[in-house]
Amino acid sequence: MKMNNNNVISMENFIEMVNKKLDEYMIVEYPEDLFKSMRYTVLLPGKRLRPIMCLETCRMLGGDYEKAFPTACAIEMLHSQTLIHDDLPCMDNDDYRRGKLSNHKVFGEATAVLAGDALLTFAPQVITKFSQDLSNECILKVLNEYFQYAGAYGVIAGQVVDIESEKGNITNEKEATLNYIHLHKTADLFKLSIKTGAIIAGANEKQLEIMTSFAEKLGIAFQVADDILDEISTFEALGKTPGKDKASGKLTYVSLFGLENAKCKLACLFDECYDILNKHDIKSEIFTDIIEGIRQRVKL
Amino acid sequence: MKMNNNNVISMENFIEMVNKKLDEYMIVEYPEDLFKSMRYTVLLPGKRLRPIMCLETCRMLGGDYEKAFPTACAIEMLHSQTLIHDDLPCMDNDDYRRGKLSNHKVFGEATAVLAGDALLTFAPQVITKFSQDLSNECILKVLNEYFQYAGAYGVIAGQVVDIESEKGNITNEKEATLNYIHLHKTADLFKLSIKTGAIIAGANEKQLEIMTSFAEKLGIAFQVADDILDEISTFEALGKTPGKDKASGKLTYVSLFGLENAKCKLACLFDECYDILNKHDIKSEIFTDIIEGIRQRVKL
Repeated sequence: MKMNNNNVISMENFIEMVNKKLDEYMIVEYPEDLFKSMRYTVLLPGKRLRPIMCLETCRMLGGDYEKAFPTACAIEMLHSQTLIHDDLPCMDNDDYRRGKLSNHKVFGEATAVLAGDALLTFAPQVITKFSQDLSNECILKVLNEYFQYAGAYGVIAGQVVDIESEKGNITNEKEATLNYIHLHKTADLFKLSIKTGAIIAGANEKQLEIMTSFAEKLGIAFQVADDILDEISTFEALGKTPGKDKASGKLTYVSLFGLENAKCKLACLFDECYDILNKHDIKSEIFTDIIEGIRQRVKL
Repeated sequence: MKMNNNNVISMENFIEMVNKKLDEYMIVEYPEDLFKSMRYTVLLPGKRLRPIMCLETCRMLGGDYEKAFPTACAIEMLHSQTLIHDDLPCMDNDDYRRGKLSNHKVFGEATAVLAGDALLTFAPQVITKFSQDLSNECILKVLNEYFQYAGAYGVIAGQVVDIESEKGNITNEKEATLNYIHLHKTADLFKLSIKTGAIIAGANEKQLEIMTSFAEKLGIAFQVADDILDEISTFEALGKTPGKDKASGKLTYVSLFGLENAKCKLACLFDECYDILNKHDIKSEIFTDIIEGIRQRVKL
């Protein structure tokens, strides 16, 4: 695969650039509570994995990653939206997120619902408003991926089935259901990040296919790791309450197959990720850092 | 103003066509509860005012209204989204909507939150998916209006200030605040409907300006009428619990200026709407029907 290996950016540099852009794009206007609530969760310190994957994919496929900032940041906003609504009392009822009080604990439930709603249209508006360097055709392609993965066919479908599973309503085909949840609840935002990065780089169909399959495996790996962390981690390391999956009887890789099998599965998924990169001669320090970072966290 | 007065469509015909298209666009897929919840509120019997205003504006400015169906229906979906989230216990806590149980009473709070979220991306996806007849440039123009009026600069800003007003937090500049709420909470979706209809018709800047000003006056009139109805109407006529504004101490035109002044204001706004239409020689039975329908409901 033809790639641009010049001008490699470190994880820290990407994080700094993304934080700066997020701050720039989200100016506080009237009514201030709304914009402050939106900013609060988006700007919580985080690894910025999704925007970085978007930027890095664009860069390593020979694109100008600067052109991908609006899209990369829009995906972080979308991700934050899912966190705000996930934490609501009627959903996961979580008081903490990334080590800080969750959005509705600070701004109240009504504002948290509305801030989440606002982010769902603010995010694609950032794409159209700040992507002057992209053609209309390219912007529409990016928006179509956003609509597909952010909505009823993507993240939200995964969320709904996840909630069903918490109610103990899944009795048959547990493995298929678990795969569905992981695929949509988590992998879809990885696919969105990586596919849009590739689209902005001008990737061809074959490249898009390869990167989508890589994104899917990495996304599922990330969720299996998340299931493991809920079992083995502490509040300090996690930034949110651990052990909640188990307590709620949630369907997770660990609850279905046990901790050791989950670790095996994760190691396998990482191998498959590296296989794809190696087979197509894709070199990316960033993706290696992401994979090895997860491996370290779950003590694999 | 150059217009197409041939091929006039009646309100009933428009309603029937919109309902058919809404049903077509919203196919129930897995997870079924999500799609059923989305469909439930969107397909509740309603006047379909916003989609009809979009279609009628397109038609009367010489456009092919058939091309506006995806956008018109997307706006109805967006409107339904605001109703689903407005009715939540943490917001207006309303058990009824259009005479039926509200979404969260039927599907539970978690699914209602997620169905609302899903509609926010499903709606613009309907625009991009079914508007093959429109140029990329036109689709992007329509989407930009959608993002602007649906989000933090539009409907949601109005909602946030409305909630503040319910808490009794507005003590100064009550009239300016009330105007802000009406402008954003209600008039913005009228502007979205009418502006996008005009854009799809290929309207020029001057026409867009005229129609936007008309939409703003009609939208504010609609909200003043809503304030009056909350005071004088019954559950049967309203399809939701009346008297809630008063009970909650909400800032409304009636609470601020009294019922008679609200009625005067409404009559004035209607005059201004007709003035705009007459001045620019715009003839529309549909808009006349809409205005006279409201006048009748509030017994003006």
